[in-house]
Amino acid sequence: MSLLIFQMSMIVLLSIACGRIARAFGRAQVIGEIFGGILMGPSIFGRIAPSLFARLFPQGSFAALEVLSTVGLILFLFIVGSELDLEHLRQQKTTALLSSLTSIVLPFTLATAAAPLFHARFSPNGVGRLPFALFLGVSMSITAFPVLARILEERNLQTTPLGATALLCAALDDVAAWLLLAVGMTFISANNSGPALWFRLLWLAIYLAAMFYIVRPLGRRFATKRAHNILTYEALGLMLAIALASAAVTDAIGVHPLFGAFLAGLCFPRVPHWQQSLRVRLESTLSLILLPLFFALTGLRTRLDLLNDLRTLLWTGFVLLLAVVGKMGGAIIGARLTGQEWRSSLTLGALLNTRGLVELIVLNIAYNAHVFSPTLFTMMVVMALVTTAITVPLLRALGIADGSSLQVRSSAAQFN
Amino acid sequence: MSLLIFQMSMIVLLSIACGRIARAFGRAQVIGEIFGGILMGPSIFGRIAPSLFARLFPQGSFAALEVLSTVGLILFLFIVGSELDLEHLRQQKTTALLSSLTSIVLPFTLATAAAPLFHARFSPNGVGRLPFALFLGVSMSITAFPVLARILEERNLQTTPLGATALLCAALDDVAAWLLLAVGMTFISANNSGPALWFRLLWLAIYLAAMFYIVRPLGRRFATKRAHNILTYEALGLMLAIALASAAVTDAIGVHPLFGAFLAGLCFPRVPHWQQSLRVRLESTLSLILLPLFFALTGLRTRLDLLNDLRTLLWTGFVLLLAVVGKMGGAIIGARLTGQEWRSSLTLGALLNTRGLVELIVLNIAYNAHVFSPTLFTMMVVMALVTTAITVPLLRALGIADGSSLQVRSSAAQFN
Repeated sequence: MSLLIFQMSMIVLLSIACGRIARAFGRAQVIGEIFGGILMGPSIFGRIAPSLFARLFPQGSFAALEVLSTVGLILFLFIVGSELDLEHLRQQKTTALLSSLTSIVLPFTLATAAAPLFHARFSPNGVGRLPFALFLGVSMSITAFPVLARILEERNLQTTPLGATALLCAALDDVAAWLLLAVGMTFISANNSGPALWFRLLWLAIYLAAMFYIVRPLGRRFATKRAHNILTYEALGLMLAIALASAAVTDAIGVHPLFGAFLAGLCFPRVPHWQQSLRVRLESTLSLILLPLFFALTGLRTRLDLLNDLRTLLWTGFVLLLAVVGKMGGAIIGARLTGQEWRSSLTLGALLNTRGLVELIVLNIAYNAHVFSPTLFTMMVVMALVTTAITVPLLRALGIADGSSLQVRSSAAQFN
Repeated sequence: MSLLIFQMSMIVLLSIACGRIARAFGRAQVIGEIFGGILMGPSIFGRIAPSLFARLFPQGSFAALEVLSTVGLILFLFIVGSELDLEHLRQQKTTALLSSLTSIVLPFTLATAAAPLFHARFSPNGVGRLPFALFLGVSMSITAFPVLARILEERNLQTTPLGATALLCAALDDVAAWLLLAVGMTFISANNSGPALWFRLLWLAIYLAAMFYIVRPLGRRFATKRAHNILTYEALGLMLAIALASAAVTDAIGVHPLFGAFLAGLCFPRVPHWQQSLRVRLESTLSLILLPLFFALTGLRTRLDLLNDLRTLLWTGFVLLLAVVGKMGGAIIGARLTGQEWRSSLTLGALLNTRGLVELIVLNIAYNAHVFSPTLFTMMVVMALVTTAITVPLLRALGIADGSSLQVRSSAAQFN
């Protein structure tokens, strides 16, 4: 326990310091926090002081960090789900649907097409081609909805056609990605043990139906009665209990618990000041303590030393290319088809290319499920870092963002 | 992990439900929450459905709950420490000092005097008489400062002589109790292994000096510069990192980590809106998720079935008598000596007799350090429950509290 508390204090401190340094260089805070995790891992700290590293992060000491970080991620994905606004969809169906489709179909298709190449080289034995392709496809198609929402909000773009489209795309991308991930997880866990695949998929369908046709309407009815009141402690607690229960159920089905948390978030009543209250009340513990633990765990798993030969570096470049071309390309095509100008289309592409924290979550799930090898995991983390880091410079180049205001915003936006 | 998440959702739900029931009966929410924990434990749920209980709470499953609950308690004691206001002491030195002294010396003396009787019957082998007496004394002398502060605040009593005295007494009691506990823990851990006792005590002294003469002045200097600003995320994170580091250091010395967290709270800059900000930002996660886990763990350790014979029940009554006579008696004597009227003195006694959550924390420390047997632990939990439960009725009987307003307040005061 002593070690855990000491690790936590180190992680919290380093995360603040690195976040601050990132902001000083005009980058999003999340970049710094992820980099802080990598600093603390075997790639850098473990290289410089191997014996101290072994003492501070002995092999068996990750379990407790994992518990805390999982609880943090459950809360985080519950919030992410609670903020997705799919209601807008009804208003501008055709335009938004098309561009969101292309911005997920293209990267997913590219990745699954390239999956056999990766599977031969970077997949631990025993993982089927189909789940591997699903995971790779999902990893390439993720958009960091929370970061995006914040960038748009800051620039007052969220009500413009471009902003609304970007938000909708990101929201739909997130839902689609998590659904695909759920299916992928079901394959993996069916392979390993327990009931057959069709049985798990059936349970998944029953669970989805129960959440959308029972829990969600109940939440909405509860909300219509009391939407004028503040979100009470009790109601918040009840919703957190539902989120936890939903996470436990999905885990029992063989899907990842984070999917359940995300889905519970989607069923959170759409009362704006309740949504805000949920975020405000959980934000500090999450972004100051629990999420940094997740970044640290990610960093502890990232082994830059595995990217030490030209071949692997070229593969990393290929991953990056696939991810950027797929996501940006898809978004740009979609935007052009819906009649946007080139500049708006490029902006949309740059925005949706942001990977952020959600990408890392998916990567860790793939790693823990033994779908990605440590090398592929590291390559994908590099991709996530690069794509997130280039968003602000790209926007600047497009004249959309003046760096200063974006910089200020990202300091306030602890959530990534 | 699946089991942990499911346990958490159950615990959160039951805690809300029991808190609500307690309020419906005009009791403090914390009573309900503790009782919820006992309901879930072997005494009740384990009796009614032993096989389901064994499946839901198998022996090995407590470690993860313990991790989460310890993190919660570290944050909680950091907040408790941050809210203690010892500055007032300078203004009304003599009166407050005397009554706080008596209200801690009497229960402590009574308990240590009775300690040999308990030691023979309820102490696991190998615990020395001195640390046992220290732990028993501290357990009897605890006042629930947070509950008290809230009750006084609600009734606008905190600026009256009585209110200020009560707050000061509780604050000094808390500091004294944790210091004595630190000394007790040092005895225990020195007995077990590692460096000698005097060495640990020396380290404890060095640590205390470092906190009060380096960390605290630094915090104060930091505060004087920026007291007009809100508490930034970064500053809050820095302070949390200090609290965690302080907890880790005290644990390494052989004192309990919660003592370090409490002490870091004492060093928190005394800027009222920062203190409030600290509480507001951590309150929800703490009182809705992390503290209920602690209550559940306490309940899982409480075995009412051990109090099944008349003898043990009589001993429980004796514990209760010692605790109430010591604490109320001490407070009343102190108040009378400082010239308070009988009614005020009785009120002060009733207020300081509240044990609340802090008492349970001390009991769990004693239990984990194998100082209290499960039977003594259960007896003390019953004492804590009873003394906390009688506070409101006692105040009502004294005409100080009209039930309704107190009831409303305790629903808002999630912290105990």
